[in-house]
Amino acid sequence: MEIKVLRHILEVNDQAAAQTRRQLGSLGVTALNLISAPGAGKTSLLEKTIPLLRERHRVAVLEGDIATTRDAERVGALGVPVVQLLTNGGCHLEATLVARGLAELPLDALDLVLIENVGNIACPAEFDLGEAAKVGILSVAEGHDKPAKYPLLFHEVSVLVLNKVDLIEHTDFDMDAFMRDFRGLNSRAPVIEVSCRTGQGIEAFAAWVTGMIDRGCRGDGAST
Amino acid sequence: MEIKVLRHILEVNDQAAAQTRRQLGSLGVTALNLISAPGAGKTSLLEKTIPLLRERHRVAVLEGDIATTRDAERVGALGVPVVQLLTNGGCHLEATLVARGLAELPLDALDLVLIENVGNIACPAEFDLGEAAKVGILSVAEGHDKPAKYPLLFHEVSVLVLNKVDLIEHTDFDMDAFMRDFRGLNSRAPVIEVSCRTGQGIEAFAAWVTGMIDRGCRGDGAST
Repeated sequence: MEIKVLRHILEVNDQAAAQTRRQLGSLGVTALNLISAPGAGKTSLLEKTIPLLRERHRVAVLEGDIATTRDAERVGALGVPVVQLLTNGGCHLEATLVARGLAELPLDALDLVLIENVGNIACPAEFDLGEAAKVGILSVAEGHDKPAKYPLLFHEVSVLVLNKVDLIEHTDFDMDAFMRDFRGLNSRAPVIEVSCRTGQGIEAFAAWVTGMIDRGCRGDGAST
Repeated sequence: MEIKVLRHILEVNDQAAAQTRRQLGSLGVTALNLISAPGAGKTSLLEKTIPLLRERHRVAVLEGDIATTRDAERVGALGVPVVQLLTNGGCHLEATLVARGLAELPLDALDLVLIENVGNIACPAEFDLGEAAKVGILSVAEGHDKPAKYPLLFHEVSVLVLNKVDLIEHTDFDMDAFMRDFRGLNSRAPVIEVSCRTGQGIEAFAAWVTGMIDRGCRGDGAST
């Protein structure tokens, strides 16, 4: 019975996600779903990358959190439209809440919507939000064993941002072991080494995002 | 309808947790539920603390993971009984699975069962496992803003282990802001600063655990 209801929830979610994907596709808006553990640096990545992206693209943000509007305030300070999505205890974003957030944005005047999911690398990977691609962020401080232990996310991502590489010499992070496990789950997604503190890799990540927009990756399988 | 089913799941969980709590209470076994984000250092904390705890107490471990038996292998190398609990995608442990794990342990020859939950600071806090106390672990690399953003866990914990303090000078972690937010949610739980790399604070955490055992804290409200 529990399985049945879970399927029901996922069906409702997938219908909303499919509708969002069609809508964004017809408007030419690229949506990215940023997923990481708490404190891996999703909001910091947005803070560092959006100033670069704004030079070429019209950007908005949906900020997913269990509680508080702190992240939306941080991102809003950059001067881009931002909507806070509060799950009120829920451990992941669902497509229905994202659709309500998108309805608050001027979609026909946007190229890119960055969706920051709740900090969690288990559940968010299961819920399609209608995005063009999932962006995984892993902090080296979390350890190199995370792909094997949380395989679904690492299988699903189209790019993996390895953040806080400025800390790597102070940790036991084993890059070879990480890459071996990650490539066992995902043969294609590029790994971009980033430090939101020093700025390392930010331009490379911004270039990847720009590539998604320029190729017309809107999650509907169509390219312009 | 979804709310009804969620209540049903929580009711089933709470009945199993209550039964576990009665069982452990009658046997004089203290169970602790370790909760943190992925990579905050739950397994490392066990690896460092168990050798100290074993000098005085009979210890076993339940290892919760979505996938792999890597953590159980790490802990098993210490020579204590360990059972791996695999959730197969589930983002938290539930009391029914914990009860099955406990049934595999020689409970009448134990003083302490350390339960390592799935790496996640949202959902695990909602599920009572029948433990005497919840142990929260936060890595300074995750940032000081986590209590406000994930309030339930920080409200529920009986002790907060602040791990990776050897990295603090390389991060933007604001201890005053952290303590202010944490104390707003939890006025009593001690905060123990730890580095599993350098060994700082490990004895203090082991002493806290020993205190729980010596006071007969078995989660049933009774003290011996």
